[in-house]
Amino acid sequence: MAGNSFGNLFRLTTFGESHGTAIGGVIDGCPAGLELDLEQVEYEMNRRKPGQSSIVTQRKEPDTVKFLSGVFEGKTTGTPIGFIIENADQKSKDYSHIKDVYRPSHADYTYDQKYGNRDYRGGGRSSARETACRVAAGAIAKQLLKDIKITAYTSAVGNIELKKPFNDLDLSEIEKNPVRCPDPETASQMESYIKDIRSQGDTVGGVVECVISNVPVGLGEPVFDKLHAVLGAAMLSINAVKGFEYGSGFAGAAMKGSDHNDLFNPDGSTKTNYSGGIQGGISNGMDIIFRVAFKPVATLIQKQQTINKAGEEVEMQGKGRHDPCVVPRAIPIVEAMAALVLADYYLLNRTSKL
Amino acid sequence: MAGNSFGNLFRLTTFGESHGTAIGGVIDGCPAGLELDLEQVEYEMNRRKPGQSSIVTQRKEPDTVKFLSGVFEGKTTGTPIGFIIENADQKSKDYSHIKDVYRPSHADYTYDQKYGNRDYRGGGRSSARETACRVAAGAIAKQLLKDIKITAYTSAVGNIELKKPFNDLDLSEIEKNPVRCPDPETASQMESYIKDIRSQGDTVGGVVECVISNVPVGLGEPVFDKLHAVLGAAMLSINAVKGFEYGSGFAGAAMKGSDHNDLFNPDGSTKTNYSGGIQGGISNGMDIIFRVAFKPVATLIQKQQTINKAGEEVEMQGKGRHDPCVVPRAIPIVEAMAALVLADYYLLNRTSKL
Amino acid sequence: MAGNSFGNLFRLTTFGESHGTAIGGVIDGCPAGLELDLEQVEYEMNRRKPGQSSIVTQRKEPDTVKFLSGVFEGKTTGTPIGFIIENADQKSKDYSHIKDVYRPSHADYTYDQKYGNRDYRGGGRSSARETACRVAAGAIAKQLLKDIKITAYTSAVGNIELKKPFNDLDLSEIEKNPVRCPDPETASQMESYIKDIRSQGDTVGGVVECVISNVPVGLGEPVFDKLHAVLGAAMLSINAVKGFEYGSGFAGAAMKGSDHNDLFNPDGSTKTNYSGGIQGGISNGMDIIFRVAFKPVATLIQKQQTINKAGEEVEMQGKGRHDPCVVPRAIPIVEAMAALVLADYYLLNRTSKL
Amino acid sequence: MAGNSFGNLFRLTTFGESHGTAIGGVIDGCPAGLELDLEQVEYEMNRRKPGQSSIVTQRKEPDTVKFLSGVFEGKTTGTPIGFIIENADQKSKDYSHIKDVYRPSHADYTYDQKYGNRDYRGGGRSSARETACRVAAGAIAKQLLKDIKITAYTSAVGNIELKKPFNDLDLSEIEKNPVRCPDPETASQMESYIKDIRSQGDTVGGVVECVISNVPVGLGEPVFDKLHAVLGAAMLSINAVKGFEYGSGFAGAAMKGSDHNDLFNPDGSTKTNYSGGIQGGISNGMDIIFRVAFKPVATLIQKQQTINKAGEEVEMQGKGRHDPCVVPRAIPIVEAMAALVLADYYLLNRTSKL
Repeated sequence: MAGNSFGNLFRLTTFGESHGTAIGGVIDGCPAGLELDLEQVEYEMNRRKPGQSSIVTQRKEPDTVKFLSGVFEGKTTGTPIGFIIENADQKSKDYSHIKDVYRPSHADYTYDQKYGNRDYRGGGRSSARETACRVAAGAIAKQLLKDIKITAYTSAVGNIELKKPFNDLDLSEIEKNPVRCPDPETASQMESYIKDIRSQGDTVGGVVECVISNVPVGLGEPVFDKLHAVLGAAMLSINAVKGFEYGSGFAGAAMKGSDHNDLFNPDGSTKTNYSGGIQGGISNGMDIIFRVAFKPVATLIQKQQTINKAGEEVEMQGKGRHDPCVVPRAIPIVEAMAALVLADYYLLNRTSKL
Repeated sequence: MAGNSFGNLFRLTTFGESHGTAIGGVIDGCPAGLELDLEQVEYEMNRRKPGQSSIVTQRKEPDTVKFLSGVFEGKTTGTPIGFIIENADQKSKDYSHIKDVYRPSHADYTYDQKYGNRDYRGGGRSSARETACRVAAGAIAKQLLKDIKITAYTSAVGNIELKKPFNDLDLSEIEKNPVRCPDPETASQMESYIKDIRSQGDTVGGVVECVISNVPVGLGEPVFDKLHAVLGAAMLSINAVKGFEYGSGFAGAAMKGSDHNDLFNPDGSTKTNYSGGIQGGISNGMDIIFRVAFKPVATLIQKQQTINKAGEEVEMQGKGRHDPCVVPRAIPIVEAMAALVLADYYLLNRTSKL
Repeated sequence: MAGNSFGNLFRLTTFGESHGTAIGGVIDGCPAGLELDLEQVEYEMNRRKPGQSSIVTQRKEPDTVKFLSGVFEGKTTGTPIGFIIENADQKSKDYSHIKDVYRPSHADYTYDQKYGNRDYRGGGRSSARETACRVAAGAIAKQLLKDIKITAYTSAVGNIELKKPFNDLDLSEIEKNPVRCPDPETASQMESYIKDIRSQGDTVGGVVECVISNVPVGLGEPVFDKLHAVLGAAMLSINAVKGFEYGSGFAGAAMKGSDHNDLFNPDGSTKTNYSGGIQGGISNGMDIIFRVAFKPVATLIQKQQTINKAGEEVEMQGKGRHDPCVVPRAIPIVEAMAALVLADYYLLNRTSKL
Repeated sequence: MAGNSFGNLFRLTTFGESHGTAIGGVIDGCPAGLELDLEQVEYEMNRRKPGQSSIVTQRKEPDTVKFLSGVFEGKTTGTPIGFIIENADQKSKDYSHIKDVYRPSHADYTYDQKYGNRDYRGGGRSSARETACRVAAGAIAKQLLKDIKITAYTSAVGNIELKKPFNDLDLSEIEKNPVRCPDPETASQMESYIKDIRSQGDTVGGVVECVISNVPVGLGEPVFDKLHAVLGAAMLSINAVKGFEYGSGFAGAAMKGSDHNDLFNPDGSTKTNYSGGIQGGISNGMDIIFRVAFKPVATLIQKQQTINKAGEEVEMQGKGRHDPCVVPRAIPIVEAMAALVLADYYLLNRTSKL
């Protein structure tokens, strides 16, 4: 209810502020008997980690996940998997200057109004640091899903767009460049642009595309919990996300039905995939494809006018080490949230028939 | 879990197939003491009703909501509000031709695969007829929200877009034309285009924009249940929706932070509203603005190749009376879902502080 | 949240007041493909029905369940099963005398204080009429559970107790007498006693015992949702219930561990069953046994002192047709609630292992 | 769903096994602005702690609660409160002898059957060690409830019963003796009996009574979530509990309505309290009174016959340091669970009226 849990059968609850002792989470409902590959968890954590390349924030946080329960002799036991990630590189003084100041387009003002008080250090609970817990849990969900392959990548940074259609992409290129764009040439342009933006003390938004393949037919529930509705909520819950579309998306709104309908092959697959792998809220076995829009990071290394708690105008300037563009580090978060959704629906679908 | 409920504190559960005896729902958690205006409910139902204008399906369904409980002497009692809407104009034989056929880009194939059997008449549970229950419940949620004003309108049909910025629109124009577009000239173009499309036996998609004003600061929960995440899920759960964006949306992904940040006025309002009225997942008191993309209706009055249950290729043609464009009738559904979300968060916010 | 839903995967939501248009419910999550035996539903409804024998209330209500959705060609489709039961024999004037009066040990006072207003006719939502919906849903849950056999019976009426241990009972006797006690001699004493009590305008409490056999090992979830915890909540949610115990129950509190421990047979069954079929909150395959205490009905056909809304002392006397003892009609309700719990856990257990 | 969360608006999720790295929990939904008294938390933890007196297990566990989030400058912030309790005194080798053995009346067999594997050390997740997290969370719930006073005490150990009616008890005596019985004489008999039982290597059950005073009218939700139904589930979820009754309880089943009805005083209070402070599932402002039956601890320091995984008969004997009677240490657990229930309903009741 209070918003810190996600999923039903495979359910993640997270806690923790950016500059508290630790962040962490509880995964409840992971089936027993799953052999956990902890190196795979670490791999995913490293993809999200600050300081991983020259185009992301240079904070140093080891982001080591410490599992506390639910795993015995290498296997899940069906009991809740508790974990914590210590906040090693807190440097709280970096944030003392914002104690009474409401940063533009941050959550400072709304948290203060809603709760009456807030942990202002580094954004507290509203910091994207919280997404580290999602990545940890998503890494376990991915292992549960085995053959279902979830791959996200950068498809736009500012106005620089990846133009190639999905099927022409070489997904093995994604992790070879710091932007995580599968087209090396576009990646290189994006990287230059991000560096340029950073040198201005500015930030820029971008778009992440995600493809999920080998999805069994039948995942998703009708009416309110359609598969794409929950995928959408999952993505929109990530910090800085402004939009979600799947299959034909907003472009589909301009199309005619005679062009948009996905005609069947005899085996139930479809000749086109404007549906984005989901029909009537239920997976149809085709690739699930969706796109997520991220706004530019609100923390600028520039002077900005703003107000303080007393409603007085003040001037402020972001300090510390921030991302000029969140998209490269958002890739594993998008994948993690997709994995959490699919793990939940995969389990739920075991109950749909007699 | 099985997907037929929406909301937590203000919670709607719906049931019913397109061609069964009746559809209906239960609203649980509506606070006691709300004086219900049933004419207002009827007004909303009429906005969604088939046959209301020449550009929508010509099915005739009275769509009368029969309240069965939870209201006594004109007021809600705090107990669940049960209601049914009878399926008057069933004409089941219209659908006998699709019993064994999977219509392209419908839910026939996925339902059959997921459940093993399905009520194929008129799409059964996957029919948009189910949204009538959402409109009924939304009409009550709107009354609970009193001063919060929710207004949706058509902002695109196919390639015809409403170009004017929101603040230049005269919202009183919306209900004066069958397309529900606040700009009369654009509305007229859209109407002609829809008629043209219909005469081809084809369909077209469109975009609905929704503005919510007078929202108190503080609605929404951090992390997974951000206000826009749940609004997104609500919209994506409506039949035919392919995308959701709020505030700057996908366009925001191309912007720089220095342009995108919403600077504060001394009273906590902001000079711009790229945030779309939500910061950190919590309403900030500015207008909430979002857009919803609808794909073209999949039922065409044209011949299409498809397959049957046995995987054999067959030719089919839509019969009956279908919408050439769902957007005009989707307006009250978008508003209803927005009202359900806000009613839930309005109640939940009563528990955020001591 | 507002208390009108029960269960997670197999979930019942009910609505309706005693003297409104209808009561009803929605069963969400019943798996597809279940062939429904509607006569079996009717059989259960008749066991709960008023007027079924000379020792229960003589109200006449046909209690016909009208299914509105979720069933197609005799089988469940996986979509929600909506149903209503019309309130045929309303006789609202019977209750006009209690409009402003708070009946002792009823819910009049608490509803009024909590909600500010209430449907006072026949107890409104607090009437046991609501349990008819539980019996309807339970009848479907029983069919889902197939081989799991749930049998409840009267084990005490006032001070008259069924002394025989469970294994010596002939359960086929239960439905042969109006008290539903499997021992004919005790049944006869109970019947006489109930008639005696009724002739005094008084009422009496009793105890229902329930045995569930053929339960697979593994149903129930650890920690907060132990099988017996949810069974307990299910029973305590029935009108007039004051206590719940399973296995050795309260008597077990006086025992020593060396007497109470259930020693294993080589096949995993146990030599004794003080555990009542549940260990660590999970079914162990032995018979599940529990007992439910019902208080005497609060409506007396005697004069009682009470107060009205204004806090003035008034004299009142129950009118109408009431049960002198709820236990005989509570038997199918206890079984229904047990079936709802087991159906939910049966589905949930499909997700416990890889 | 998987059973490790409790509550809706005020919601506790726990994790951890008896002999893992740590146990812990997350409290989500605690309103912002609550000044936390951490000494009060420690006081409650000490009441549950092993080794606190000569009649409980002599394990040494400091049981220090380490709060990780959700509290800032001494106050709750409305964000989730994460906490861990390290497992200091693990001594895992104490349990190596039970690796393949199913202890009678423990959860070994059922966990193994349900999950396929289990952490056998000290009972793993099924160990009562998990209740430490409940006490920590309950201590915070108590602070939220301020004036509502929750007091539990031992009312029976084996056949030794506290005979005095509740109103004649001096509750200030409870913490003065290790049994936590408010009557010093009875307490002394109970203490002797427990020592006697322990010297035999045996164990004994008991009953805890709990009184909640200063409860506002209106807590609880009708139908399935009646206040006593959820209190019952809360108590039945505690390890070793076999029964729950409130107000007149099982004794009430033998009473007549004319004796059982609680007649009103003009102020809405009642002359008697057979209802136990709850009518129609909603608190009526009178003291809430309930009783909880605990079975004797299953671990004996005696030889017992049992079986191993292979179904072979083996002889075993409990080692280690176990409680001869759980009741004295269960007192704070019963109070904690009651506090969690009331905190949840206290918040929920903020939404019952307009």
